[in-house]
Amino acid sequence: MSATFSRLSLNTMTTKSWNLRQAVEATAAAGLPAVGLWRDRVAEVGVDVASKLVHDNGLRVSSLCRGGFLTGIEDGEHALDDNRRAIDEAATLGAPELIMVAGGIPDRDLPGTRARLADRIATLVPYAAERDVRLALEPLHPVFCADRAVISTLGQALALAAPYPASAVGVVVDTFHVWWDPDLAELIAAAGAQGRISSFQICDWLVPMAADPLVSRGMMGDGVIDFAAIAALVSAAGYAGDVEVEIFNEEVWAADGRAVLETMKSRYRDLVLPAL
Amino acid sequence: MSATFSRLSLNTMTTKSWNLRQAVEATAAAGLPAVGLWRDRVAEVGVDVASKLVHDNGLRVSSLCRGGFLTGIEDGEHALDDNRRAIDEAATLGAPELIMVAGGIPDRDLPGTRARLADRIATLVPYAAERDVRLALEPLHPVFCADRAVISTLGQALALAAPYPASAVGVVVDTFHVWWDPDLAELIAAAGAQGRISSFQICDWLVPMAADPLVSRGMMGDGVIDFAAIAALVSAAGYAGDVEVEIFNEEVWAADGRAVLETMKSRYRDLVLPAL
Repeated sequence: MSATFSRLSLNTMTTKSWNLRQAVEATAAAGLPAVGLWRDRVAEVGVDVASKLVHDNGLRVSSLCRGGFLTGIEDGEHALDDNRRAIDEAATLGAPELIMVAGGIPDRDLPGTRARLADRIATLVPYAAERDVRLALEPLHPVFCADRAVISTLGQALALAAPYPASAVGVVVDTFHVWWDPDLAELIAAAGAQGRISSFQICDWLVPMAADPLVSRGMMGDGVIDFAAIAALVSAAGYAGDVEVEIFNEEVWAADGRAVLETMKSRYRDLVLPAL
Repeated sequence: MSATFSRLSLNTMTTKSWNLRQAVEATAAAGLPAVGLWRDRVAEVGVDVASKLVHDNGLRVSSLCRGGFLTGIEDGEHALDDNRRAIDEAATLGAPELIMVAGGIPDRDLPGTRARLADRIATLVPYAAERDVRLALEPLHPVFCADRAVISTLGQALALAAPYPASAVGVVVDTFHVWWDPDLAELIAAAGAQGRISSFQICDWLVPMAADPLVSRGMMGDGVIDFAAIAALVSAAGYAGDVEVEIFNEEVWAADGRAVLETMKSRYRDLVLPAL
């Protein structure tokens, strides 16, 4: 494995057409050290087979995506049970970080929804900590506040994490979600100083956007994000972990997976690595 | 004019198919006291005729939309000149507030773009203050950061306004743009305490969104925003000015303007007014 790519991880969502075996084998063949796994890919073969497949190919799991969706009114116990299963899966896979996407608002009560989320995180923290899995709270871009994640800023994620040890609850820095934040430099520095940067995920913000914001993420360099600037902030904050490429994009999904991997490697080498 | 609607203002964008005379006459006929004017509607007849038309119909101008778009690299002087013309128009119209939409990013340097914006605001403040026009800095939802407005939060708008007297630079609270902000309560309170709330604009956040976020605004009650909660915050912060309905929405634009006005009145009466 090349030192150039010693921190680069392929999130399975980026090569959505591949099954787990294809993604793992291609990642290893491309000289990358890590994969970020989505639970649907793990479920295809079962967690034990998935774990063996990843580790037999010499890879580590940078993160498991995803827990969360904890904001419903009626289905709290069901959601908590599903999150406990996700924590178990992360433990079995040796995934140190379980990415948590909060969930949206079931009604018009945003502060109430956020309070309910905080309560449910409190319920999950001991379960996760006992299994050495960190809950990685992911702020999503505010465009997703209504339907996907009521954690909208890195500052809010840090406030939610504050009651717990940094080893138990961290935060995700995903360029697509946080690039616009006027307080980004201070917040990344604070997250790093607290030892709470669980994951650094990268993809670009496209202009114009896709009709569905969910799939408006682009390959690094195809949009408006200054990757060198954000990578430098994350690096200066002490983060030395994997850099995971997670792209939701219909064109990327339609492309040949090996070509996507090669583009991702060259963009990482040119735009991100020099600032790490 | 009914006391019920003594603070309700129609922004001309909400009834986009109407020319200025139609909008003004319908607003007066509907018993509303104010209009928010877009410059294109003013330009149709010229600013002097527009001013006479509004005031002859017994209306006040709650705001003029808009100045701004100050973030370009090459066209700084041109943009400043256009903003000076907008300030002149606001003065002639008796519009106390000129809504400022910052402009997007011309390159990948977001901090640099924001610094350039701050410099250009500094240039405009004395010109506006001499004419008793307040520059009303409008944070736009972060979904517009790239292409429309690098002011993304109320906190950022307040920081930009901080060097100037509250009489010279204010901030806009538009529900569509700020509803998601985890710090909304504190920021509205701070804006009010500083006397900087220039304008309270209302419309809803629709789920699912329209394919173009720009026209994804809905009539109050059609989306997920808790208008009573935000109106209560604005009211508790001491704001006693107009409440302007500004909706960008293809269906609303295609509807009969008088029906839109009536719906807007009833939604305001039911969802907003009780909390003011």
